[in-house]
Amino acid sequence: MTSDEKWFTEKCDDSGSSFSLKVTQKLHEEQSAYQHIEVYATEHFGHLLVLDGYIMLTALDNFIYHEMMTHPVLFTHPDPRRVLIIGGGDCGCLHEVLKHPGVTQADQVDIDERVTRVAEEYFPELCVSNDDARAALHFVDGIKWVEDAAPGYYDVIIIDSTDPIGQAARLFSQEFYASCRRALGENGLLVAQSESPLLHRELIEAMQDRMVSAGFAEVTTCYFPQPTYPSGWWTATMACNDRALPGFRAQDAVDRGFTTRYYNEQIHRAAFAIPEFMNVSLDLPVD
Amino acid sequence: MTSDEKWFTEKCDDSGSSFSLKVTQKLHEEQSAYQHIEVYATEHFGHLLVLDGYIMLTALDNFIYHEMMTHPVLFTHPDPRRVLIIGGGDCGCLHEVLKHPGVTQADQVDIDERVTRVAEEYFPELCVSNDDARAALHFVDGIKWVEDAAPGYYDVIIIDSTDPIGQAARLFSQEFYASCRRALGENGLLVAQSESPLLHRELIEAMQDRMVSAGFAEVTTCYFPQPTYPSGWWTATMACNDRALPGFRAQDAVDRGFTTRYYNEQIHRAAFAIPEFMNVSLDLPVD
Repeated sequence: MTSDEKWFTEKCDDSGSSFSLKVTQKLHEEQSAYQHIEVYATEHFGHLLVLDGYIMLTALDNFIYHEMMTHPVLFTHPDPRRVLIIGGGDCGCLHEVLKHPGVTQADQVDIDERVTRVAEEYFPELCVSNDDARAALHFVDGIKWVEDAAPGYYDVIIIDSTDPIGQAARLFSQEFYASCRRALGENGLLVAQSESPLLHRELIEAMQDRMVSAGFAEVTTCYFPQPTYPSGWWTATMACNDRALPGFRAQDAVDRGFTTRYYNEQIHRAAFAIPEFMNVSLDLPVD
Repeated sequence: MTSDEKWFTEKCDDSGSSFSLKVTQKLHEEQSAYQHIEVYATEHFGHLLVLDGYIMLTALDNFIYHEMMTHPVLFTHPDPRRVLIIGGGDCGCLHEVLKHPGVTQADQVDIDERVTRVAEEYFPELCVSNDDARAALHFVDGIKWVEDAAPGYYDVIIIDSTDPIGQAARLFSQEFYASCRRALGENGLLVAQSESPLLHRELIEAMQDRMVSAGFAEVTTCYFPQPTYPSGWWTATMACNDRALPGFRAQDAVDRGFTTRYYNEQIHRAAFAIPEFMNVSLDLPVD
């Protein structure tokens, strides 16, 4: 890296690694009431959103994460109508959720309105559904929102949180999962981003255990690439509130009638294949 | 990164990105007749092998690559006995190949003997099969080896090459694929590492085209995470020389009787799911 190049670098202390993107310009920087928000133009990955120094998304690769946080759970629920997104202020999950014509209400609850306003300016492609009549954006505390929700109200809850650090750690707790379960109706499904299988296996296993302890009947994890997150490999963990996970609506996924860039019926099935070391708790070569 | 920390950084010009690992010690450095070889101890990823400045492998995550370069092709061939590995001087593929009891001969042909000697010292876990009576290590030019091979001699050829830069570019050519095809017997299968779907889609498509142009009957690509390679997401492209790809020997994979850390029967099937943007040549958000 020569001295006239500019790079954004995210250091991952968990893994003694760091990932850098070459930036051409800093487009935005502010300290909101909740976090430090930055937006950069990068050489190859399009716009980059950074919160408190961590890469949240790039224009190039966020499609994988947002599609995998939404379509697997929505094509597993038999008839998802009311969807709650906790976090997700960039509106990428909201956009994917509203591609499902059966959804009648999508509540997005992110405490920091500034993230959404910044996304509207620098990631307009993620915010095209913000004015959809079915969408409601609430800038309040997600934990309180779920506690206050009418029991059995939602069909699907999506936890699109930051890493389990600081305030966001509460979104990974058994108490919060129990609260989500109460807010879910019959066949209700919860899905939460659950970090890297290579770097955070213990967290994934703890999340699965906490969901079961919170009363969820069955828990499963799906795997997908996410190039700009640590290790480039990520997971989402799904749970069903009152019975075994319903089957995949595979034909509906085939006939979905909307565009995706990563997700399809084959990818849905593939994402739930469990790597051997997660299956049988093998030691990794370096642990 | 404070000034007393030491990092190894690989810059990926294709993508304006770089990946760094925190190192505790440089264990080895030499200029062989063919390339610059370095080995580091890292904080979290174990030993790191670097060739000409590019990360070849780390102790932590090479299992995914080596298992996915070998077991899918070996459990697709109906009865693989004679296997040729081009490149692969670190011996990781060789070790996985020799886990298959039906294999009677595994020739590893890497021009640089120094890579193997360095691997024996710093990655002994990859070299445990080097003394297997079925293994033969040849330190000569792989292209000439394939040209000189008896027609129809091999059941499986594995191209475990570096990136398509400099001398290694010839290992991605139609002429070389035609030469491999001639050296393969009935039902013979070729597999080649084929870079990142996110960053090198055009190369993957070109490799598929070149294999078909070289006379291979059917070509398919499998996808897997590879955390320390650019984008953290990688592929291997497989081709069958004289007829459609044979079916997956799924029960044999279930009953394999040897340890893997990533590969299993579910993962095998999952790896061949094609992401939508590769399936229908959709534009990526930033192209």
